[in-house]
Amino acid sequence: MEHNSTLSAEPLSDSTGQEYGKSSCAASSVQNHSETYLDGNAFAAKALAKAGIEYMFGVVGIPVTSFATCALKEGIRFIAFHNEQSAGYAAGAAAYLTGKPGVLLTVSGPGCVHGLAGLSNAMINTWPVILISGSSTQTDTGKGDFQELDQVEAVKPFSKYSGKARNIFEIPLVISKAITFAVHGRPGGTYVDLPTDVLHETISVTEGEKLLSDLQPYVPSWSKVETSVGQQLPNLEIDAAVSLLQEAERPLIVLGKGAAYARAEDPIRQLVQLTGIPFLPTPMGKGIIPDTHQRSAVAARSLALKESDVVLVVGARLNWLLHYGAHPNWSKDVKFILIDISSEEIALRKPAIGLVGDARRLVSQINKKIKDTPFSLGDKHPWVEKLQKKTEDNVKRMAASLNKDVVPFNFLTPMRIIRDAMADLGLPAPILVSEGANTMDVGRSVLQQIEPRTRLDAGTWGTMGVGLGYAIAAAVVSPERLVVAVEGDSGFGFSGLEVEVY
Amino acid sequence: MEHNSTLSAEPLSDSTGQEYGKSSCAASSVQNHSETYLDGNAFAAKALAKAGIEYMFGVVGIPVTSFATCALKEGIRFIAFHNEQSAGYAAGAAAYLTGKPGVLLTVSGPGCVHGLAGLSNAMINTWPVILISGSSTQTDTGKGDFQELDQVEAVKPFSKYSGKARNIFEIPLVISKAITFAVHGRPGGTYVDLPTDVLHETISVTEGEKLLSDLQPYVPSWSKVETSVGQQLPNLEIDAAVSLLQEAERPLIVLGKGAAYARAEDPIRQLVQLTGIPFLPTPMGKGIIPDTHQRSAVAARSLALKESDVVLVVGARLNWLLHYGAHPNWSKDVKFILIDISSEEIALRKPAIGLVGDARRLVSQINKKIKDTPFSLGDKHPWVEKLQKKTEDNVKRMAASLNKDVVPFNFLTPMRIIRDAMADLGLPAPILVSEGANTMDVGRSVLQQIEPRTRLDAGTWGTMGVGLGYAIAAAVVSPERLVVAVEGDSGFGFSGLEVEVY
Amino acid sequence: MEHNSTLSAEPLSDSTGQEYGKSSCAASSVQNHSETYLDGNAFAAKALAKAGIEYMFGVVGIPVTSFATCALKEGIRFIAFHNEQSAGYAAGAAAYLTGKPGVLLTVSGPGCVHGLAGLSNAMINTWPVILISGSSTQTDTGKGDFQELDQVEAVKPFSKYSGKARNIFEIPLVISKAITFAVHGRPGGTYVDLPTDVLHETISVTEGEKLLSDLQPYVPSWSKVETSVGQQLPNLEIDAAVSLLQEAERPLIVLGKGAAYARAEDPIRQLVQLTGIPFLPTPMGKGIIPDTHQRSAVAARSLALKESDVVLVVGARLNWLLHYGAHPNWSKDVKFILIDISSEEIALRKPAIGLVGDARRLVSQINKKIKDTPFSLGDKHPWVEKLQKKTEDNVKRMAASLNKDVVPFNFLTPMRIIRDAMADLGLPAPILVSEGANTMDVGRSVLQQIEPRTRLDAGTWGTMGVGLGYAIAAAVVSPERLVVAVEGDSGFGFSGLEVEVY
Amino acid sequence: MEHNSTLSAEPLSDSTGQEYGKSSCAASSVQNHSETYLDGNAFAAKALAKAGIEYMFGVVGIPVTSFATCALKEGIRFIAFHNEQSAGYAAGAAAYLTGKPGVLLTVSGPGCVHGLAGLSNAMINTWPVILISGSSTQTDTGKGDFQELDQVEAVKPFSKYSGKARNIFEIPLVISKAITFAVHGRPGGTYVDLPTDVLHETISVTEGEKLLSDLQPYVPSWSKVETSVGQQLPNLEIDAAVSLLQEAERPLIVLGKGAAYARAEDPIRQLVQLTGIPFLPTPMGKGIIPDTHQRSAVAARSLALKESDVVLVVGARLNWLLHYGAHPNWSKDVKFILIDISSEEIALRKPAIGLVGDARRLVSQINKKIKDTPFSLGDKHPWVEKLQKKTEDNVKRMAASLNKDVVPFNFLTPMRIIRDAMADLGLPAPILVSEGANTMDVGRSVLQQIEPRTRLDAGTWGTMGVGLGYAIAAAVVSPERLVVAVEGDSGFGFSGLEVEVY
Repeated sequence: MEHNSTLSAEPLSDSTGQEYGKSSCAASSVQNHSETYLDGNAFAAKALAKAGIEYMFGVVGIPVTSFATCALKEGIRFIAFHNEQSAGYAAGAAAYLTGKPGVLLTVSGPGCVHGLAGLSNAMINTWPVILISGSSTQTDTGKGDFQELDQVEAVKPFSKYSGKARNIFEIPLVISKAITFAVHGRPGGTYVDLPTDVLHETISVTEGEKLLSDLQPYVPSWSKVETSVGQQLPNLEIDAAVSLLQEAERPLIVLGKGAAYARAEDPIRQLVQLTGIPFLPTPMGKGIIPDTHQRSAVAARSLALKESDVVLVVGARLNWLLHYGAHPNWSKDVKFILIDISSEEIALRKPAIGLVGDARRLVSQINKKIKDTPFSLGDKHPWVEKLQKKTEDNVKRMAASLNKDVVPFNFLTPMRIIRDAMADLGLPAPILVSEGANTMDVGRSVLQQIEPRTRLDAGTWGTMGVGLGYAIAAAVVSPERLVVAVEGDSGFGFSGLEVEVY
Repeated sequence: MEHNSTLSAEPLSDSTGQEYGKSSCAASSVQNHSETYLDGNAFAAKALAKAGIEYMFGVVGIPVTSFATCALKEGIRFIAFHNEQSAGYAAGAAAYLTGKPGVLLTVSGPGCVHGLAGLSNAMINTWPVILISGSSTQTDTGKGDFQELDQVEAVKPFSKYSGKARNIFEIPLVISKAITFAVHGRPGGTYVDLPTDVLHETISVTEGEKLLSDLQPYVPSWSKVETSVGQQLPNLEIDAAVSLLQEAERPLIVLGKGAAYARAEDPIRQLVQLTGIPFLPTPMGKGIIPDTHQRSAVAARSLALKESDVVLVVGARLNWLLHYGAHPNWSKDVKFILIDISSEEIALRKPAIGLVGDARRLVSQINKKIKDTPFSLGDKHPWVEKLQKKTEDNVKRMAASLNKDVVPFNFLTPMRIIRDAMADLGLPAPILVSEGANTMDVGRSVLQQIEPRTRLDAGTWGTMGVGLGYAIAAAVVSPERLVVAVEGDSGFGFSGLEVEVY
Repeated sequence: MEHNSTLSAEPLSDSTGQEYGKSSCAASSVQNHSETYLDGNAFAAKALAKAGIEYMFGVVGIPVTSFATCALKEGIRFIAFHNEQSAGYAAGAAAYLTGKPGVLLTVSGPGCVHGLAGLSNAMINTWPVILISGSSTQTDTGKGDFQELDQVEAVKPFSKYSGKARNIFEIPLVISKAITFAVHGRPGGTYVDLPTDVLHETISVTEGEKLLSDLQPYVPSWSKVETSVGQQLPNLEIDAAVSLLQEAERPLIVLGKGAAYARAEDPIRQLVQLTGIPFLPTPMGKGIIPDTHQRSAVAARSLALKESDVVLVVGARLNWLLHYGAHPNWSKDVKFILIDISSEEIALRKPAIGLVGDARRLVSQINKKIKDTPFSLGDKHPWVEKLQKKTEDNVKRMAASLNKDVVPFNFLTPMRIIRDAMADLGLPAPILVSEGANTMDVGRSVLQQIEPRTRLDAGTWGTMGVGLGYAIAAAVVSPERLVVAVEGDSGFGFSGLEVEVY
Repeated sequence: MEHNSTLSAEPLSDSTGQEYGKSSCAASSVQNHSETYLDGNAFAAKALAKAGIEYMFGVVGIPVTSFATCALKEGIRFIAFHNEQSAGYAAGAAAYLTGKPGVLLTVSGPGCVHGLAGLSNAMINTWPVILISGSSTQTDTGKGDFQELDQVEAVKPFSKYSGKARNIFEIPLVISKAITFAVHGRPGGTYVDLPTDVLHETISVTEGEKLLSDLQPYVPSWSKVETSVGQQLPNLEIDAAVSLLQEAERPLIVLGKGAAYARAEDPIRQLVQLTGIPFLPTPMGKGIIPDTHQRSAVAARSLALKESDVVLVVGARLNWLLHYGAHPNWSKDVKFILIDISSEEIALRKPAIGLVGDARRLVSQINKKIKDTPFSLGDKHPWVEKLQKKTEDNVKRMAASLNKDVVPFNFLTPMRIIRDAMADLGLPAPILVSEGANTMDVGRSVLQQIEPRTRLDAGTWGTMGVGLGYAIAAAVVSPERLVVAVEGDSGFGFSGLEVEVY
């Protein structure tokens, strides 16, 4: 009985595990006279490694199996998932936790479409994620090739940049652009298209190295050795922002996950220390300052929103999670000071004052100004006391409920058990992954974050199905921390089989 | 401890099951003076029912939970999945098996993005699938609403039509267009966007009925009493096609899943009966004529392709699965007669003769002409004998391998067991679902299809992850048949948790 | 004073006329050993010529100047315009008048954007137009090259197909696809992208000829030698349509420019002759049957629409020009029989009967059926008499106005003078080009079309600015006819300078 | 003879001039009980005026004629063109010259498509231009309405933002977003879609004023009293940039039109004064410092590029006009310091130092640092002397050619005459508009710019056809200056009829 040649265009094996043995990256480099040649798989893997990529999440198959093997050889850790959907969510979480671009690898056609989930989720959460997909042989485009799709076009609504390496020589340029657009300006998703024919082209090692010479690892601004912020020019906006905070009767600091991404935790803690202003984190902003801090308004959220008169928002958008900064959740006369990386975002929200730039730097500048003209809300300040009172009431009421052992379980009892178990772990604090509406809701109140970037949940987009991918990514990039995934059953149902992966 | 109002924008419950109890469609219709009013949920459900929709696959949540409840009330069967990805594949299989539009329901943002898998897969396989997604409140667009996305734009690369009901009055029109574009011309995917605010608008029952009066169930041409439908062709082309077949020395009929979708099995069987021409099905074309038919060239595929001189292709495209109709898999001088619903498809392939239209009607016309000037290849025809000989050799070789009991299992032994078990079932034959490269490959040779539309596999796009969705859809729309899913482990990994669904 | 090298990226000369002398296509083919080589310019020109292209309209400049020169050498007539906007309109008119694809040539970036006017206008009017634009060197994409634009992407909303020749070998394939998609199915616009680097690549004459061997001139169905429509199968829809017309009390035939494009004039005249049913042309449908024909309802349009009970629409869409086929312009109970090339178009309009296909063939089939069961509305038929009476009244009233010599001119007096002058010309009738609202309005009533395809006006889209382009195209492709452009001043203002062109 | 009702969907008059009299904005506001109502035309005009729009360029017709009339009544100057193509170019020039958003008004369908030329040209030149187009009645979408087009989709490839006012209440929001996205971040094109039905909706004056209350005129940063705007930079980068310049042996300052747009002329002149570093403007950067300044390297361009070792680029991109900053036009080891508003642009070019932000502010910061640690290249510095020597040689050679009176004219003689005539005018200097390859080339060498923003030419995109539009816009927004358009004949041919407009 004959075997159809159509098979060759399908994954070589049903077993992901088996496949690695077969496809050798060694075959990707061939000796020819005195010169060694690399194929596109090997060359693209080298380019990624040269650009500082350390992890890659995805699902292999024709035509990118050998590429993944080569990446492993270059020291990139490849985490093989069951479904590109989860792998894409993992790439986003890895980007958020490391501050560097997360990479998702998929096959062509349906693989790329499955990958759009992770790409779009990263776009909305403003995380730098690079989707790399194999694609059809270019000469067969339009003829109905295996898994053919105009992927460069299809990903456009979900990305900042979408480019195809039309030949092996363009691979470094396209990867470089994809990284550049992913990490600069407001971070987001980008796309690299690697056609089958390009993966099979060859380049000499010598020429390849020349083309790779420009590629360098992306270094986030927070990891650069900076002596100090230094002597600043008179800065009218910083001054105006500080004056506004100083004159406020009920000031508030709102902390978003953008501040966590920017590693602004040190200057932010200093700011709260200096001024005594209460703060309120968004769900994923929890932990930038420990939830246990005296000035946390997390248990008095509604009151804090409704009555604050001047609000410094760091790395959060005035979107649905913050009720658009609008009445009736907020006071009619509230004045916002927005710190954001995007000038368009600030212009859209029309705040009293907008500070465009890196949160870490800008809060440092604010701190410096405040040190020149110090002010502080003491523990007896009426606004502080009011929030403190409300917090105590709410905590007390919740404690009463929590202390009951309800069987069969309601949401509270198991959450208390989890809370206590996590608290016992001490530092470094575990990373909490949470999804499911009630699960997130109750968990947000009961569970406490002590360190920044230790809570991963449905995020800006309210995305269901992220849990397993996030948990796996967290375990991979933060091996020093335990990862605790608290999943509602519908959330778990999206990708539960991925528990096998790690 | 307070509950954030952000919760209200998330699924009401972690348990899909529980949710139905809470959201009552009864609440969707309100009495006001003498007039009863419907909200958008109830009205959209009525529109779908009026348009003949019987099944809906999907995942509910804000803002479409009530819509699903209302659909149930209208008699539409809603099958709730864990992940929109699988639900979308189910909608495609349902469309293929019933010949009517398959419907996929998702929430906004990430739900819609997860649904693109099913929509694009339907597009490539040319099946009529309608994706219906809830979307953000229109007045909050651009402000960062819950799960906000320009969905109408995002689905465009994957669909034939993409429209938004901008108010409750437009719901019937948009649904009507979505159905029209899905089923007419070359079938494919379409999109209906239902904004949250529109789902909450109301319309009086009287006005609603007026707006629904134009909607009618789609009736596939094959189910009409008359057979005469579609584009008209003068007999000149039919005559030419018959002449070409008649003069051929090594004619072949290739049967694609398009012929199965068009319910062309009766005239096709008659054609083979009349002429004795050997036939070769594509993988999903298997069963249009039973694999056990004497003229089947399925076990002599390479020879049939390489040596045939005139090939009538019914409902299949000359894409990668058929090696683009090109040398060296085909003879250099082979002449194709293409029957396809799309004139552009035919024009692209440049066949000797192209017949644009419905396969069922066109093959009937061919049969009529042949009855006027009959010809037939007897069992002793050299071409028939050559293929027969090759088939016997291949079958014999395969049988030798199959008869061994290899433990631990290779691919052949379990496949033989499955084959025998399926054969024991008799008629109606079970529906086979198959994915995974080796699984499909070996299965294609060993397993036999006796009835049309009883094989569902990775299809035109080689899509991995379709298995569970296809199996569930088949069980739902064909309750009279057993469904057998033969899954490779990687294929199963994409959506294995969906086994819970049915 | 030095000359900047930036110059080299701009048109070589300010004078279009001068430029031709400089750029020689001879330079495009170079001798190398025993083999002659062509560059992309020469090869693309050969491909167009091989595909039967006879005319090309456009504006040259870097990088397509040499391509135009080569096209001239291949016998293609290149008509150089001042502005790509007008040239594009010319290409559309040429397509309509010849029934073959019209070609528009532009430079990259802004040239391509100027060309979108002609492409989109062709799309809406369903004329086959191919936009060919030069584009940036592919290796400089993303770096800010001269006139860089992602043209393939930019034209997508305005075209059926958009493709780039990524190397010289792909030129024939991309041109072939562009022609295929332009002319098949519902005709429309397509796009061919020729990058600068590809235009400078070379191919040997031998290899080039091999690649061109598949290209053949497009032959419209109406120009094929067909003996007769032949013996038809029983055709239920044709029968039903004829029955409906036969039973009608106030039947009407509406003739659109699609019928003119399909060269359906002979069978249509025969149909009116056989049945005596009154007919009403759309503005550009005038002349399919002479306006002077007794059954013309052109001067009783409102009455014809409002009272007809069964309407056969040939090659026209029920769009704004026909008031969507809806009440109150039409009777509430009117039944439509639509003949259209697009099944989606028919499905959208939900007519009583829809006949998908070529107008020329389908009307012939209808005629054949009528000959079998003849019926005819005589001159004394009440419906005929009613329309006749209304026509006479309106004509008389208009004649009274027309006969006055009003100075300074109103719209009527000059229009009468033009009418009389045109009538004096006899046959072949001149081609009338008309734009401007009042100009078209009054002209539609006063001026008469005696032959098909002799009226070109703002068309389906109501496009202003088409006049000069249409007039030039008509003069080029119909040298046997005088072209009369009757332009309102605003219409003329769009492109008046093009009068220099011809 | 009856008049078809189709007329009502076409421009009301062939004469643009006449039309204004007919359409009265007074009719747009109606009294109803005690409340006055505005229609969409009047309301949108009020919104634009409230947002500080002073000029609008375009072509009127159905459905935006009344809108233009209302805009006039609100004090907005509407300049009516013959063709939207030229009007769009005018809007771009107005934006560049005023630093505020330029507005282009068009009708639907083809009008919008004609407007894409101006929108895309503005996008590439990074000028804030807002295209406002009327569009079809929303309920008729998909039915083939007059000039129907999915304009929101069609403009996307050419714009930063594309939005539709779906009802009258959304008009202020959409206009606000269009302005925000046009002017913030890197400026560019945006789109506002005003459907016919929305223009006919009404709103009470009271409610309208409430909705308009948030709209405020855009105030460019340079026109604010304070200079402190935009992204914050620590002095580290400024210090590093100054050190690099100080250590350079052959430093150069390159001035782009971005610096002119940002009104950075004062700090830039101060910088050259302080340091004595030679400068080189791009064509449209000429005049930021007078061409007659001793340190101008404009007549020694090739030498300056090839030998400079450190280059400060202010408001120019390293695109084709600057040879991508690459060898061989530049030295292999050249180090760039880029000042640009876009961090992505800087990241793409990989300069030694990138300073993201407003050119005016950043150059001021540099000046401040230099004043602390002053350094200066005197007239005897070898690099200054070398460029000076080359400049003198080139000027001398050019002078010899210029002094000849060649008849019939070559390019030089008339250019000398124009130069002398312009010089005689003194200050304020006239605005020069120039297009055509040789015309621009020779003109760039012979004509001198003494003041910033006095040269408008084909720009970043090398766009032909901009001349008349630019000239008219310059005359409108800079009435104190003479405008001199020096046009090659091909350039003039694109839009010569627009000479009538002003």
